[in-house]
Amino acid sequence: METPLVVDIHTHVYPPSYMDMLRARRTVPYVHDPPSGALPRLIILSSDDDQSIPLDQRGRPVDTSYSDINVKLAFMRQHGINSSVISLANPWLDFLAPEEAQIWAQRINDDLEGTCARVNSAADPEKRLGLHEKETLFAMGALPLSAPSADIIVGEIHRLKTLPHIRGVIMGTSGLGKGLDDRRLDLVWAALQETGLILFLHPHYGLPDEAFGGPDATNRYGHVLPLALGFPLETTIAVTRMLLSGVFDRFSRLKILLAHSGGTLPFLAGRIESCILHERKFLANGGNVPGPQRSVWDILRTNIYLDAVVYGKAGLEAAVQASGGADRLLFGTDHPFFPPLDDKEGEDWPSVTTNYKAINASFAGDADSISAVLGGNAVRILDLK
Amino acid sequence: METPLVVDIHTHVYPPSYMDMLRARRTVPYVHDPPSGALPRLIILSSDDDQSIPLDQRGRPVDTSYSDINVKLAFMRQHGINSSVISLANPWLDFLAPEEAQIWAQRINDDLEGTCARVNSAADPEKRLGLHEKETLFAMGALPLSAPSADIIVGEIHRLKTLPHIRGVIMGTSGLGKGLDDRRLDLVWAALQETGLILFLHPHYGLPDEAFGGPDATNRYGHVLPLALGFPLETTIAVTRMLLSGVFDRFSRLKILLAHSGGTLPFLAGRIESCILHERKFLANGGNVPGPQRSVWDILRTNIYLDAVVYGKAGLEAAVQASGGADRLLFGTDHPFFPPLDDKEGEDWPSVTTNYKAINASFAGDADSISAVLGGNAVRILDLK
Repeated sequence: METPLVVDIHTHVYPPSYMDMLRARRTVPYVHDPPSGALPRLIILSSDDDQSIPLDQRGRPVDTSYSDINVKLAFMRQHGINSSVISLANPWLDFLAPEEAQIWAQRINDDLEGTCARVNSAADPEKRLGLHEKETLFAMGALPLSAPSADIIVGEIHRLKTLPHIRGVIMGTSGLGKGLDDRRLDLVWAALQETGLILFLHPHYGLPDEAFGGPDATNRYGHVLPLALGFPLETTIAVTRMLLSGVFDRFSRLKILLAHSGGTLPFLAGRIESCILHERKFLANGGNVPGPQRSVWDILRTNIYLDAVVYGKAGLEAAVQASGGADRLLFGTDHPFFPPLDDKEGEDWPSVTTNYKAINASFAGDADSISAVLGGNAVRILDLK
Repeated sequence: METPLVVDIHTHVYPPSYMDMLRARRTVPYVHDPPSGALPRLIILSSDDDQSIPLDQRGRPVDTSYSDINVKLAFMRQHGINSSVISLANPWLDFLAPEEAQIWAQRINDDLEGTCARVNSAADPEKRLGLHEKETLFAMGALPLSAPSADIIVGEIHRLKTLPHIRGVIMGTSGLGKGLDDRRLDLVWAALQETGLILFLHPHYGLPDEAFGGPDATNRYGHVLPLALGFPLETTIAVTRMLLSGVFDRFSRLKILLAHSGGTLPFLAGRIESCILHERKFLANGGNVPGPQRSVWDILRTNIYLDAVVYGKAGLEAAVQASGGADRLLFGTDHPFFPPLDDKEGEDWPSVTTNYKAINASFAGDADSISAVLGGNAVRILDLK
């Protein structure tokens, strides 16, 4: 049997131009270069910007894996990944002043496109995707969501569609500042649906500290609560607000890829559906709020795709069940986050091998499904060729 | 094949004494009796206490299903439930003034015990549990958590152990007011472990409105966001704080039953474990915070039990995987919540049949597992006889 093609659809970059922009800032998100010459510090979460911690130790160190594409390519080679669909890491462009948004979005998206073109042309065209001898890249673009008019966002979506290596857009949960059930986003959903670009929904803001018992409790265990729980819960809330507000009723062909296997959507889908069916406020039950027309299960099996970044068989089985099989699930790594703590040259990353193992365990003996999740689905859904 | 014994381990009551206490209050939680003679209104969530809504329409109507045990027994009969382990519904006694806590806890727990004794003695002893001809009751007690000293709480736990029908205690996520990773709770965990009473952890507070985009967004879709997402996310956060703080390392025989199949814990267990293994703040990784000693998977398979109230096969499969099989999963209904919107005499509740169907689908063809989840596990774990 042929070794399956492996595509990583959840892998982030901070292109050099983005790092330079962050270096020029002094409020979150920003990059600080310690005068000692130690690794730059990346401060992207407000909880990281703790004024009681010296600036040189605040946030996280960023090595070259964050911005040097050659490090990404070496990571791919080491982990048997043939193709990566790179996306700008959080917090994307959410924080930009309105007048800056368009120019930075174009610049960064052009950077991403240029990087893919350069890497792929260096690969021998005869030996590309499928032959496993050279790594190839595709990308998700970023949107100028803080731009002064939705036309600018829509314009960038249409421009992205013309760039040969762009296959979708990555977006956080803030939208235009009021969440993803904001009717003003309909123009954006329409443009995504029309172009066929997939929306990669990814968390960044987590939950308010009070959800964890206040700032002390939130940070008591390092990043565990905000990253292990805050991130997936944020995604779940965002996509649930989309479906409750009827986004998928109005845009029935919208394609959305949810980070971290949907946050917790696959697990909670049944409870969400039950609460909708029991909600007196919805029209269907005699209330005065429209409510969603389509079931959560239908949306999970028509509009939603899930990455397989869930670190275990338990989560993965829920994802498979919720999305109706193996053909909506896509392998990913979350690179360059979660590197091994004692990075020994040549050793695989446990965060990656855990996900490989979960896929192999969930589909034990079903080579077609494994092959689909590892790469076949991504090639088909994102038209990677 | 014999019809399996069915035990409902997630079923709530507001005993008449508790209702009277709520009637005497004017702040959340409280009960208001409309002068019109319409059904009393129960206002238990701060989001329900909307001053712009007339008092007569605030909160939810409470019919006799909330406090009349005969209604519960009829519900059981209708849905083929042989035995119920009743528990005080949220918010339990969290809100009581310190000097009131002990007396109300004793009074309510004695009420629960008395109700079980009365119902079970009415049932023909020869035809009880296992013979399906009469319904039987057991109960979880409530704790005086706001009492002025932990000795009072511990004393009530030991007293509960002497009551013949009490099998555990139900508790929210607030603990002594600072969450369940509060070291002052160690006395409580020790007493629970020593008595063998199970801790039924249940949500009530949900998430701060800002998690959903502010109060307007939170209530835009009725109760869907707070109930479908806020509740399970609250449970997940609470139990994760317990395990991160080492509660299960210090109390390795503590038994805990998680409402709603663990909130989202089964789905997120892999991500939590991965984040712990990558957290530099923990001793194991060179930091200065102890961190948990046991893996999330170990705790899920040793200390944690999950109800099967998850409304679908997707969630249920994650629960089975996470807890290592069918023997830690227990059928429940969440009665009297989620009744049919158009309650027709004699029709089964969809919220209940959805859970029955999910259990039958997940264990299709495996009668032993179905029987275990429906009742066998509860009989064994809670010693129901």
